[in-house]
Amino acid sequence: MKPHLKPILWENRNLHIIDQTLLPGALNHIPITTLQEAEDAIKLLKIRGAPALGIFAGFALLAIVIHEKPKNVSEAIQIINHSADVIKKTRPTAVNLFWATDRILKVVNNTSHETLNNLLNNIEQEALNIYQEETKACEQIGIYGSSLIKNSTTILTHCNAGALATGEYGTALSPIYIAYEEGKSVHVYADETRPLLQGARLTAWELQYAGIPVTLICDNMAGQVMKEKKVDMVIVGADRIAKNGDTANKIGTYSLSVLAKYHGIPFYISAPSSTFDLNISNGSQIPIEERNPDEIYFFNNKRIAPEGISIYNPAFDVTPAENITAFITEKGIIYPPFDKTIPKTIGNKNEKK
Amino acid sequence: MKPHLKPILWENRNLHIIDQTLLPGALNHIPITTLQEAEDAIKLLKIRGAPALGIFAGFALLAIVIHEKPKNVSEAIQIINHSADVIKKTRPTAVNLFWATDRILKVVNNTSHETLNNLLNNIEQEALNIYQEETKACEQIGIYGSSLIKNSTTILTHCNAGALATGEYGTALSPIYIAYEEGKSVHVYADETRPLLQGARLTAWELQYAGIPVTLICDNMAGQVMKEKKVDMVIVGADRIAKNGDTANKIGTYSLSVLAKYHGIPFYISAPSSTFDLNISNGSQIPIEERNPDEIYFFNNKRIAPEGISIYNPAFDVTPAENITAFITEKGIIYPPFDKTIPKTIGNKNEKK
Repeated sequence: MKPHLKPILWENRNLHIIDQTLLPGALNHIPITTLQEAEDAIKLLKIRGAPALGIFAGFALLAIVIHEKPKNVSEAIQIINHSADVIKKTRPTAVNLFWATDRILKVVNNTSHETLNNLLNNIEQEALNIYQEETKACEQIGIYGSSLIKNSTTILTHCNAGALATGEYGTALSPIYIAYEEGKSVHVYADETRPLLQGARLTAWELQYAGIPVTLICDNMAGQVMKEKKVDMVIVGADRIAKNGDTANKIGTYSLSVLAKYHGIPFYISAPSSTFDLNISNGSQIPIEERNPDEIYFFNNKRIAPEGISIYNPAFDVTPAENITAFITEKGIIYPPFDKTIPKTIGNKNEKK
Repeated sequence: MKPHLKPILWENRNLHIIDQTLLPGALNHIPITTLQEAEDAIKLLKIRGAPALGIFAGFALLAIVIHEKPKNVSEAIQIINHSADVIKKTRPTAVNLFWATDRILKVVNNTSHETLNNLLNNIEQEALNIYQEETKACEQIGIYGSSLIKNSTTILTHCNAGALATGEYGTALSPIYIAYEEGKSVHVYADETRPLLQGARLTAWELQYAGIPVTLICDNMAGQVMKEKKVDMVIVGADRIAKNGDTANKIGTYSLSVLAKYHGIPFYISAPSSTFDLNISNGSQIPIEERNPDEIYFFNNKRIAPEGISIYNPAFDVTPAENITAFITEKGIIYPPFDKTIPKTIGNKNEKK
């Protein structure tokens, strides 16, 4: 078996990431040493996926300060605080980016460091903690999720909620990786996921890398595949889950949930407990973000739609709780009635902003 | 109001077509004078859509023979028979191509022509007959279909079954054009229609050309649009309709029919009576053609999916009769029970192969 795919490598205090913009054409690990490189990596989507961004932020702050060769503790702290400011501004909606950066800043600013080496060790420990906690949660999601996967199972997924979006394993793909490692035969249908094609470019690629059989389809083929082929279950990730179970995820997820229901196919959301937002009672409170229409007007710099027409480009949609069979989390599998089981399993931790 | 969009122009015995491969970038009418040009136009999809191909074949045969300047009737007939052979081989599944070519050949070979001019006049008359019959059928579909469209109606469509696929008006888009000409306010949501993007490149373009408000979406957004926006009806075309009403159409149509049913939105198939195949009792007898996976592997010559993965690329799917509200044909609107109403309305004409 191949070693696990890791989008972020931290070895001998050197940070490398897979440049995801080059996939599936090339698997290149690029070094990140300066603030400019870290900023570009996030902005240009060389690294993406909420959990992966959090992990990246921790290591990037350390790599940057090491590269700058500060003379003393206070100079180092200055560099870190400035870098954290810049990194937090790269993607304003990436919650994990703020959360992870703040964890590092807390270590830097709220404890005393006798030597420069102490400081660097303390930061490294916290960055490794973030990495290990995130990876452990994903692995645990996979262990719970794999219990739902029998031998010879066909699973349909959407977008990329795989290893490339996290530290390792992924969220939606983690149950599939673990089932495969346990020796079960699995086959994945991956929606290409327009407009940005994360399914074609990333999910198909990382499953192939792991040796898991994958068949790529266009999004509009999912209904036909459910009708004609043996699709045993749908597993997708989540961006935000309300207290009642209504779930925001990549655009197309809602359509898939309707198709799954029509065909009697179980529909699972796979996400860490940090994705649950218990301050939101239901999905109507989740705003639908619209993205740049150029994502649909153009493809690979070629115009594919006429100038001047209207384009609607919602980035995600909300799947109502009644279309969801269960949530696969690192705290266990959550079944209906969600308005009772979600608060009970996830706890009150996520109830404060 | 702008003149109607006509993909095929026949003026002063000169044939011009809109080169659809250049849309939406440029609206170029290119001349067709030689057999080579006619063959390339079909093979390279400069002209496409079953009704449009039939009309094109009639005029192309005439344009070719005029260009060759034959000395007498028998030389002209030889040129036409040879050209017809070549044109029929361009796209083996295009039924209208065979049907129209055979109508011209029947005129050429089964009647006597005193002079070369007689022959050319007779061919021209039959080519114009084909054009007028096809256009009339599409217009009549539109008149019947428009009766279903109230003022301020939002319609969702898939692929391109518009003027560009026919002589004028289209099939799925004809009710929309007629409603618009009757002064009704209409708004169209057009699925981009992966993998070949006929919705983005052609439907959005021709509706914009006609001045009809159109909003382009990715295929995976249709469910969200139905849930969030006011979609009053879905109208799509058809490739083949079985005796019980099961309908083969562009891949993605089946998923749309399920989504429409879930949201309580009427779902119409708009097609001429020639699309009904009463020799087929139901959709299970319609084979699902798979197309070249390169349509999904590559986009604009750039690889978007990893080499070596599996791809499933069905060209169409079958929508079961129970998901269809009614058929809009030139013979009237056909409502359930389809197993009774289809044979009654369409008649026995289509029951022989």
